[in-house]
Amino acid sequence: MRGAVMYAPGDVRVEERDDPRIVEPTDAIIRLSATCVCGSDLWPYRGIETVEGPAPMGHEYVGIVEAVGRDVTTIKPGQFVVGSFFASDNTCEICQAGYQSSCVHRVLMGTIGTQAELARVPLADGTLVATPEVPPADLIASFLAASDVLGTGWFGAVAAEAGPGKTVAVVGDGAVGLLAVLAAKQLGAERIIAMSRHQPRQQLARHFGATDIVAERGDEGVARIKDLTNGLGAHSVIEAVGTQESMMQAIRSTRPGGHVGYVGVAHDVELPGDELFFSHVHLHGGPAAVRRFLPELIDLIWNRKIDPGKVFDLELPLEQIAEGYKAMDERRATKVLLTL
Amino acid sequence: MRGAVMYAPGDVRVEERDDPRIVEPTDAIIRLSATCVCGSDLWPYRGIETVEGPAPMGHEYVGIVEAVGRDVTTIKPGQFVVGSFFASDNTCEICQAGYQSSCVHRVLMGTIGTQAELARVPLADGTLVATPEVPPADLIASFLAASDVLGTGWFGAVAAEAGPGKTVAVVGDGAVGLLAVLAAKQLGAERIIAMSRHQPRQQLARHFGATDIVAERGDEGVARIKDLTNGLGAHSVIEAVGTQESMMQAIRSTRPGGHVGYVGVAHDVELPGDELFFSHVHLHGGPAAVRRFLPELIDLIWNRKIDPGKVFDLELPLEQIAEGYKAMDERRATKVLLTL
Repeated sequence: MRGAVMYAPGDVRVEERDDPRIVEPTDAIIRLSATCVCGSDLWPYRGIETVEGPAPMGHEYVGIVEAVGRDVTTIKPGQFVVGSFFASDNTCEICQAGYQSSCVHRVLMGTIGTQAELARVPLADGTLVATPEVPPADLIASFLAASDVLGTGWFGAVAAEAGPGKTVAVVGDGAVGLLAVLAAKQLGAERIIAMSRHQPRQQLARHFGATDIVAERGDEGVARIKDLTNGLGAHSVIEAVGTQESMMQAIRSTRPGGHVGYVGVAHDVELPGDELFFSHVHLHGGPAAVRRFLPELIDLIWNRKIDPGKVFDLELPLEQIAEGYKAMDERRATKVLLTL
Repeated sequence: MRGAVMYAPGDVRVEERDDPRIVEPTDAIIRLSATCVCGSDLWPYRGIETVEGPAPMGHEYVGIVEAVGRDVTTIKPGQFVVGSFFASDNTCEICQAGYQSSCVHRVLMGTIGTQAELARVPLADGTLVATPEVPPADLIASFLAASDVLGTGWFGAVAAEAGPGKTVAVVGDGAVGLLAVLAAKQLGAERIIAMSRHQPRQQLARHFGATDIVAERGDEGVARIKDLTNGLGAHSVIEAVGTQESMMQAIRSTRPGGHVGYVGVAHDVELPGDELFFSHVHLHGGPAAVRRFLPELIDLIWNRKIDPGKVFDLELPLEQIAEGYKAMDERRATKVLLTL
């Protein structure tokens, strides 16, 4: 099969790789309908995370089940399925509490690599959720978004306790930040402030439900949020970047007693204990428990209540993946969909 | 009146100070029935926090109202009252959300100094809660505990979402940690693990409701908590120390999706963003919103359902306050009650 491999920072290629096969009796093999490049793939691409190349890439996936291991009981060949970037058993105590991305048996899909024609999905019964039928082509992008960026934005919004009567601010205008706006809207937030300096992203944020745009960042951004909230700060702030600046911007934009939901993968972040203490905020986040929300998200997409696929603003064949990484790295694209 | 003043680290004296008087029309003047030394008073005493001496000391208080300003409507002379270490209006949006210690008009009582015969309490209607009648002498210590250490332990237990079916661990065996055990018990926790190496404190923890004692600390303490919880960690961990070690011990003792409630005043704490991210814990804490809980705590004490006053294991007249600080600094006493 054809699959993407990163050799070194800046060097991603599509090459011939071995077809995946059933290794564990709980595995499934899926043929991908589409895949994509994630903002988090840019950390190794930029050399900020080390990469021991050649490494298979990709952790977002939707597709048709080709085969299942002998212990798989609920997932069947021919189904269209969506899974998250962590395979999980969905039965352990941690999964049952809704934290499937910390499942005691979790497997990081990024180590398997889903920027490819085929992929092995461990713990198929726990990991995969099937759609009612094979969906029409125009819904593929939205289901693919559910695999990570929508699920991650949603987890951030839930962690930030976005809901009725709340003012929600979103730090970060990548695909996750934009879909956190969508999630906050669906969760019933009264006011949603998107922090973005980029006109096309501002527009998409408004489409997804943002009521206000703040272009300033850092201390000025915090001051603008305070201005918009009687000097108190937002009730809920979703952090979707993962840098020191964005984390502090999120914490400082939140009122005492409010909630920060952080889903940007933290890189070189150190939170000052004394400031956090006196900020009085709730802090929760981490690798999004996407699996918790998949049934609900699939239902919303299937019934065309939400259109998260709109975050894909560049579509390329898998063979041109190098251009996809480059476009995202240079911020020419928000999110790249790879066709197969 | 007589009142305590800190001149420099290690140098606390009782001397003649001006009687307090009504400054704002919302003030009350109370005559203290008892006061005490707080673990947080040891930070400046030990020179870890700078002190611009001579500085009045103390922020815990119960007593009889002597006078009220012309705008005070609910608090009346002759009442026995309990207040918290932050005066608060109890009407602003932040107070109404239950975060009175971040009230937009808050006043830190430590700047007024309640280790004294009399004290001015700002925002009396919002700050003070009266008991049904003047209580018998044997309840004074418990009401005094409600002013800070009980309220702080309770806030920590609520922040950690201690409750039915939960395994709760408490890091720190000072008065706040011990009363966090009591709070977890009252909130219905199933199992309560007190982390303590000190036999008399272990005993008091058991009296307050601890079901298990872990004497180890740091990585070994974390390993013991994991042993006791199927390798997963506690659902709820209350941090009541405020050091880097204790914060990391608390975070690492908590299962993914669990809750850390931290009430130890953070000193030189830096939380590593990546570890926090992958820990998947909820983190909440800060200056305890004691006022939120005072009506409930007063009711429990008045009806003798709880006996938090047991944390006072040394009683001295105010004039001997220097010995009180020394005994707590040397850990000969858990908590010192000062009689007047």
